[in-house]
Amino acid sequence: MLHPFDPGYVAEPFVTLCSEYPGTDVYPPGQFRTEWGPIFHRGRLDGSARVLVIGQDPAQHESVIRRIMVGEAGRRVQGMLRKLGVTRSYVFINTYLYSVYGSVKAHTRKDARLVDYRNRWLHALLTGSRIEVVLAFGRVADEAWRFWRETPAGGGIDLAYAALTHPTQPESASNGDKAKLADATTALLRNWNKALQAVAPRVQHPDAPTPLVLYGDTWTDEDRIGIPEFDFPAGLPAWMREQDGWARRVGPDDLAKRRNITIRIPKGVVA
Amino acid sequence: MLHPFDPGYVAEPFVTLCSEYPGTDVYPPGQFRTEWGPIFHRGRLDGSARVLVIGQDPAQHESVIRRIMVGEAGRRVQGMLRKLGVTRSYVFINTYLYSVYGSVKAHTRKDARLVDYRNRWLHALLTGSRIEVVLAFGRVADEAWRFWRETPAGGGIDLAYAALTHPTQPESASNGDKAKLADATTALLRNWNKALQAVAPRVQHPDAPTPLVLYGDTWTDEDRIGIPEFDFPAGLPAWMREQDGWARRVGPDDLAKRRNITIRIPKGVVA
Repeated sequence: MLHPFDPGYVAEPFVTLCSEYPGTDVYPPGQFRTEWGPIFHRGRLDGSARVLVIGQDPAQHESVIRRIMVGEAGRRVQGMLRKLGVTRSYVFINTYLYSVYGSVKAHTRKDARLVDYRNRWLHALLTGSRIEVVLAFGRVADEAWRFWRETPAGGGIDLAYAALTHPTQPESASNGDKAKLADATTALLRNWNKALQAVAPRVQHPDAPTPLVLYGDTWTDEDRIGIPEFDFPAGLPAWMREQDGWARRVGPDDLAKRRNITIRIPKGVVA
Repeated sequence: MLHPFDPGYVAEPFVTLCSEYPGTDVYPPGQFRTEWGPIFHRGRLDGSARVLVIGQDPAQHESVIRRIMVGEAGRRVQGMLRKLGVTRSYVFINTYLYSVYGSVKAHTRKDARLVDYRNRWLHALLTGSRIEVVLAFGRVADEAWRFWRETPAGGGIDLAYAALTHPTQPESASNGDKAKLADATTALLRNWNKALQAVAPRVQHPDAPTPLVLYGDTWTDEDRIGIPEFDFPAGLPAWMREQDGWARRVGPDDLAKRRNITIRIPKGVVA
């Protein structure tokens, strides 16, 4: 297999879940970029996943690739999974199917239809599955987990769980201020270290067993890992996995930006 | 099923074919846009196809959707298939995996590695299959068919076959000249009528049996049919199927254009 790929949604209940997703009545276009369609997952749907990652919402790179957490946030989480020895046996879903536009109102976030659909995914991934550890990145992902825990099925499962700082929270919170960014990064890595120490013993079946090495005060190159080819749909080019920034929302005003995704292949790919 | 989708490459031999595709050594980047990755097919890979369509090469809309013949050419062929009563039981492949850039040299076109890989697809789709009719659109698609016919497996199969004018040949050939476009369209529709009359009796298992109604001298609205949702990957928005022009190659020079695909959602989708 020169170019292994993710086959996607081939078996139940995922075939049904991907054909019955909520639309603009549940995800209002004033709060979500529903116009790009839902983006469901990344990783193993064949029952082989040992770690479940819950993220927040997809962005523009995800809208092109049609898998979630394929940008910088994804590479950072991929690095954390490797610290746990998990290089393949994972599955990611997001709190929201669509990219957040502005902010999400509480009554939207708690809409039973939105929560119930997500719980169907969690049910499909967790009930009778091999998953040992659940990692939720960001506040809304933690809430998604708690909502699932309140369901009859969700309450009865014994799993290691950690709520973590979102992988790009330092960038969002520092707004270009380098000192703030450094501090927020250090805080994030301490938060992640704590979670690593808590859940590492619960990863009973790592793909690549490895002694736990914690993060330092800042990212190193080894802490970020490219998204594996086997997580992408068939035929996508390698440059889509290697770095961010090749997809941007461009336009003279908010509406124009919202209607646009501009893909620019990184330098050096086309001679 | 509110949003039926195409599951893609889920069974052999297609899983292997989509992981072993030829790259730049077979498809030179001077002649093909290999930088966007290969795009393999559209339609049924589960053995239910009755008509095989061979097209030419993918363009920018196909690079986003990752299925072939999803633009204007695809809608015209879709209309022809409906005239044959075929609304679902079809499969499309292209002569080339990658979009042609400039023109293709004869020795590239005839490269055994390029031809052999395509013949593996034809072999997978035609050997022991239910396909009754093969339609090749454009000169190179006809050549692809003849190369397959020269193989031991290809020579032994009895199938109705028609070589047809490429669905957007009138636009390519008329270069903005309205009179030329009208004449070329009339010529194309006569060519398609001839093929329809030849192959219609060989469609033994139409999805929606229908008396054969030939084309007039120009396209009518009913002659173009939107690409069905069940041909697209999961979660793609409806506007991607409904009209062309939402994906363009934009830039100040050839290299910049080549590195770019700009997606702009049609007016009215985002309020």
